[in-house]
Amino acid sequence: MKPIQVGLLGIGTVGAGTFNVLKRNQEDIRRRAGRGIEVTMVAARNTERARSVTGDGVQVVSDPFAVVNHPDIDIVVELIGGYELSRELVLQAIANGKHVVTANKALVALHGNEIFAAAQEKGVIVAFEAAVAGGIPIIKALREGLTANRIESVAGIINGTTNFILSEMRDKGLDFATVLAQAQALGYAEADPTFDIEGVDAAHKLTIMSAIAFGIPVQFDKAYVEGISQLQAVDIRYAEQLGYRIKLLGITRRTTTAAGEGIELRVHPTLIPAARLIANVEGAMNAVLVHADALGVTLYYGKGAGAEPTASAVIADLVDVTRLATVDPSGRVPHLAFQPNQMSDVAIMPMADITTSYYLRVHVQDQLGVMADLTRILADGNISIDAVLQKEPGNQTDIDIIMLTHQTQEKSIDAAIARIEAMPAVIGKVTRIRLESLG
Amino acid sequence: MKPIQVGLLGIGTVGAGTFNVLKRNQEDIRRRAGRGIEVTMVAARNTERARSVTGDGVQVVSDPFAVVNHPDIDIVVELIGGYELSRELVLQAIANGKHVVTANKALVALHGNEIFAAAQEKGVIVAFEAAVAGGIPIIKALREGLTANRIESVAGIINGTTNFILSEMRDKGLDFATVLAQAQALGYAEADPTFDIEGVDAAHKLTIMSAIAFGIPVQFDKAYVEGISQLQAVDIRYAEQLGYRIKLLGITRRTTTAAGEGIELRVHPTLIPAARLIANVEGAMNAVLVHADALGVTLYYGKGAGAEPTASAVIADLVDVTRLATVDPSGRVPHLAFQPNQMSDVAIMPMADITTSYYLRVHVQDQLGVMADLTRILADGNISIDAVLQKEPGNQTDIDIIMLTHQTQEKSIDAAIARIEAMPAVIGKVTRIRLESLG
Repeated sequence: MKPIQVGLLGIGTVGAGTFNVLKRNQEDIRRRAGRGIEVTMVAARNTERARSVTGDGVQVVSDPFAVVNHPDIDIVVELIGGYELSRELVLQAIANGKHVVTANKALVALHGNEIFAAAQEKGVIVAFEAAVAGGIPIIKALREGLTANRIESVAGIINGTTNFILSEMRDKGLDFATVLAQAQALGYAEADPTFDIEGVDAAHKLTIMSAIAFGIPVQFDKAYVEGISQLQAVDIRYAEQLGYRIKLLGITRRTTTAAGEGIELRVHPTLIPAARLIANVEGAMNAVLVHADALGVTLYYGKGAGAEPTASAVIADLVDVTRLATVDPSGRVPHLAFQPNQMSDVAIMPMADITTSYYLRVHVQDQLGVMADLTRILADGNISIDAVLQKEPGNQTDIDIIMLTHQTQEKSIDAAIARIEAMPAVIGKVTRIRLESLG
Repeated sequence: MKPIQVGLLGIGTVGAGTFNVLKRNQEDIRRRAGRGIEVTMVAARNTERARSVTGDGVQVVSDPFAVVNHPDIDIVVELIGGYELSRELVLQAIANGKHVVTANKALVALHGNEIFAAAQEKGVIVAFEAAVAGGIPIIKALREGLTANRIESVAGIINGTTNFILSEMRDKGLDFATVLAQAQALGYAEADPTFDIEGVDAAHKLTIMSAIAFGIPVQFDKAYVEGISQLQAVDIRYAEQLGYRIKLLGITRRTTTAAGEGIELRVHPTLIPAARLIANVEGAMNAVLVHADALGVTLYYGKGAGAEPTASAVIADLVDVTRLATVDPSGRVPHLAFQPNQMSDVAIMPMADITTSYYLRVHVQDQLGVMADLTRILADGNISIDAVLQKEPGNQTDIDIIMLTHQTQEKSIDAAIARIEAMPAVIGKVTRIRLESLG
């Protein structure tokens, strides 16, 4: 059979990785797919640099639409990033009846609903394993491996840059700015690291997992996003003394409140018990923890970024599409795990309504009655306390009081914090970090 | 569309779990599969007990061939275990043009080649996710998620009973027999625990993963199998002092020696550095670590047994078959990951040729020159030493000498051990446990 013809849009890090792995392992891949898979066309802004990767025998063009519109291309691989031009290209490829593979988490999180509807109508596949957690086959696990289950929650360390920074802050006792600068020097963080450190990248990935886990549309605009740039070294240290690690966690979970059923969708620094396997995921590694009703807890761990790990996911999608291209579309794995006419309209919850535990650090003047006032405010809000730690950061007159609370609603904590910050003995703002036992 | 009709052979623990989860989550499963999946027929030796699980509306029979031969059954789920009757039933189901889902690792490890050939010829699917690591979707990960990669090795804690026993031995300092008795009382170990504790169950699972990872036929008869029944509490303690945990590991790996390329396929107690994530997999949990050339290291963790975790995998297979039943067979995922006419004939290696590190414990009379003799024997065999620990187990005249070696061939170690055991000062046998750094 004629090899499947693939057109790459973009041949940067992931594109070059995809090209090289496809070439290096072409025999093993053909033995698995039952058919060769060949990159025959590449679109790149810098065509000369592209040719230095592809060598001869591949058509290199500067106009990505030339790939998308080329009649011989079976599958378009979108690796240019962003979400305007990439959206246009993907929609055009679909309109031309081509299958699409993308590693673009922003595109799927923001325009996934539109793209999947177009693909459904046209009867083509849009595959996006590489968009979440690099090469870890987590989309496949959630969408195909766990189909028996009512999935209860997904919690993941899904941004390697921030996990690297947090690991370094803890290991070396350094502050955020210092470690970020080192990470940039080492190439672990971008020159403009905003998307990573502010949690946006993690929220894109979490949004996609949430849709697949619960059968809801992608709803990035409803995600709560809080990064690690405000996190202080002192809190990492105190958390450790209390038996916890701080990780930037993406959490999505079914919850039922008085208001009915809802979906939590949130990214924020989170205390995790140090004994949990996921608390020991260090450096730039990723891990996703899934709670499902029949299966219980499963964890998926690996490299969440990089040329070849991401290429691994792109190529797995190429093989899947190659294998499935002949199926009657009704027999294919649905893009968002559930059949398109079977999506749920259960709503993403506002943060005020979610329930979790909290780490609170209050900086106070060391005077009689402060602790009594603090505990009174928490008791008034029906917030019970799990642990208290009192620390003298150095001088004699101020102290840090660290409290871990039991489960409580975010609006109760917010109200209590407002009252605490109004206390005359309290200096500055209260530091609040959410805590998940992930039990 | 008419629901897919499923016939269960056996409705013990996993069968009842499958029935119950299919029923409880039928809405979510239908939303994913695009079609209902219903158990309409069950074969069980005790039909009355079977009816107490199924209630009315399901046809319960005592003859499993009645299910396999029934014209309305689309998919046969084989859950009776063993490998004689089950082989006959599965082959008959295939001959009747039915798809088969099985949780039977012994059947696949021993008769997989024959069964897959029959299925291939008949154009039906035989799915077996539940045969390895319970509900963890590791077959799917290896067979579909990692198709881009040349897989280098797979190492797994794939038997919950032995991992529970080893965890308890370490935590409580108890010996094997005591913990086994407790595990049996708690239901974590069978009345006849031979298959678990002697490593046979793990070797069945490893054989299946080896075939899928490397594109070779299943070859259980070539597997090296060593269980934990001879493991002593003292070695667990010494390993811990040296920074290691002992796990019953299944390891399969590509290796090149002077004799050419070969596949290691071995189950045995193994020292693992305590800092590795997989060393911290405790109790009855399973975990599989995969090294692949593009993706690097990934780890898959979860429950490897139990009614609903195993049912989760059985049902995932049912959904896959439901989705894929319409595909042209050439577009399906191959049973053993690689196309049947593309299998490799690279051979399973004899244990004498494998290379790994070793933990050696030698019980000796404490006399001058013993250490010199020991190190001389190792040096003669070109075996270099990584660490030495000397311990007095209690009385004054005997000591334990524990040595960790660097990488060496098993035949060199065997030769050295024979020489060591011939030393007059050495009491009894040398305890030898393999060590893998899994780095």
